[in-house]
Amino acid sequence: MSGPTTVTAAVLVIGDEILSGRTKDSNIGYIAEYLARIGVDLREARVVPDVEEEIVAALDALRGRYDYVITTGGIGPTHDDITADAVARAFGVSIGEDPRIIAMMLERYQPADLTPARRRMARVPQGAELIDNPISKAPGFRIGNVFVLAGVPSVMQAMLDFAVRSMTTGAVMLVETIEAGPVPEGRYGDALGAIAAARPEVSIGSYPSYKDGRFSNQIVVRGKDAAAVAEARAAVEAMLEEMRSDGKPL
Amino acid sequence: MSGPTTVTAAVLVIGDEILSGRTKDSNIGYIAEYLARIGVDLREARVVPDVEEEIVAALDALRGRYDYVITTGGIGPTHDDITADAVARAFGVSIGEDPRIIAMMLERYQPADLTPARRRMARVPQGAELIDNPISKAPGFRIGNVFVLAGVPSVMQAMLDFAVRSMTTGAVMLVETIEAGPVPEGRYGDALGAIAAARPEVSIGSYPSYKDGRFSNQIVVRGKDAAAVAEARAAVEAMLEEMRSDGKPL
Repeated sequence: MSGPTTVTAAVLVIGDEILSGRTKDSNIGYIAEYLARIGVDLREARVVPDVEEEIVAALDALRGRYDYVITTGGIGPTHDDITADAVARAFGVSIGEDPRIIAMMLERYQPADLTPARRRMARVPQGAELIDNPISKAPGFRIGNVFVLAGVPSVMQAMLDFAVRSMTTGAVMLVETIEAGPVPEGRYGDALGAIAAARPEVSIGSYPSYKDGRFSNQIVVRGKDAAAVAEARAAVEAMLEEMRSDGKPL
Repeated sequence: MSGPTTVTAAVLVIGDEILSGRTKDSNIGYIAEYLARIGVDLREARVVPDVEEEIVAALDALRGRYDYVITTGGIGPTHDDITADAVARAFGVSIGEDPRIIAMMLERYQPADLTPARRRMARVPQGAELIDNPISKAPGFRIGNVFVLAGVPSVMQAMLDFAVRSMTTGAVMLVETIEAGPVPEGRYGDALGAIAAARPEVSIGSYPSYKDGRFSNQIVVRGKDAAAVAEARAAVEAMLEEMRSDGKPL
């Protein structure tokens, strides 16, 4: 019997504005959550500047390694939008105006208003399939295993809804979150490590958060086998219960 | 005359919880803004899972390429905290309990409460300098050009304040933001491209945002030479003013 299918992905965020701190990226987190829900495991994310060589190098590193790569940013009409060119170069294909996009633009603009800048948004690598953009029309595209989406979150999100329709998805990662609350990681770390080591079929993480001068911890069990996840959850809960009732100070 | 000094950095976020979507990273954006303010240029960011080989590979790729690497996450007391081991492996040094950290812990815990899990937080690579943690005591560390910080944002931020004291910093990037507002990128893209092409000493970006069904654009000029940044800003403003008054619909 084969195990649950695994489909992997990486996100490549393209844009000087993220690295300069001007814009706080929210696309990685959104895509991470979205892909987890549909059964695609996000394995890596990178942020690179608007520099063609950097984008090409990252694309090549990621597209060979994961089933899918999702890029965000750099597909607008201005000079700093160089993602389509970089993707064409990474795939070694030519790039030109796509007549489907020009036709779409002519529904919206008079021919005289189809500036070179706007026409720039019609340039996609040879052989790319378009990804609908219900918000601002200029589409994203897919070539091979790379999906090229906008950087503006609402536009990216609408494109992602469309893009995932053509993805093969795997088994969904099941997630159980157990509140350890004030029980310190240093109290349960050894016992949790033993629970995790005995259960290689699940992954167990411990996550502190800090608020108003106090730490509060969550333990998360993740896996693709429902029985294994449930059993690990029970083991973690029993361990915490024992610590809460053993009379030692937390 | 030499140009303004440039000091570069990368951020490496370590943690399954970011890639699974459970936790939304805010450390990249915080560090980006912080470094920009002190004259360190963030050039790349990566997010990798709690897998030693992945952490080592990313560390090796980044530390050879940038002046500094800042890691966040994976330095707590539980089994999934493997950053210190990965850093030691990347640098090819041994790792062991640091007597300074053990002494610090003994101020807080009875010897009997110094569990193996807690002692795990005392493990740092041979030769590392400690980075103060005023919030939860367990320190981060620096080895070579790599700064290893906590993942919890408030703890990371406090450690970063301490860590940057030992960084060499370069010229601060000057940033001017010009509101294009409703003037569409497709209207000004060509003129802006010409302005940017004529001024290689500054970098100019155009950033749309979308809210309540409308796009609004900002143009950002960045550079290290104040006169060049001011001149580029004036050119962008004059260009926008011309478009707002040329009588054509926006």
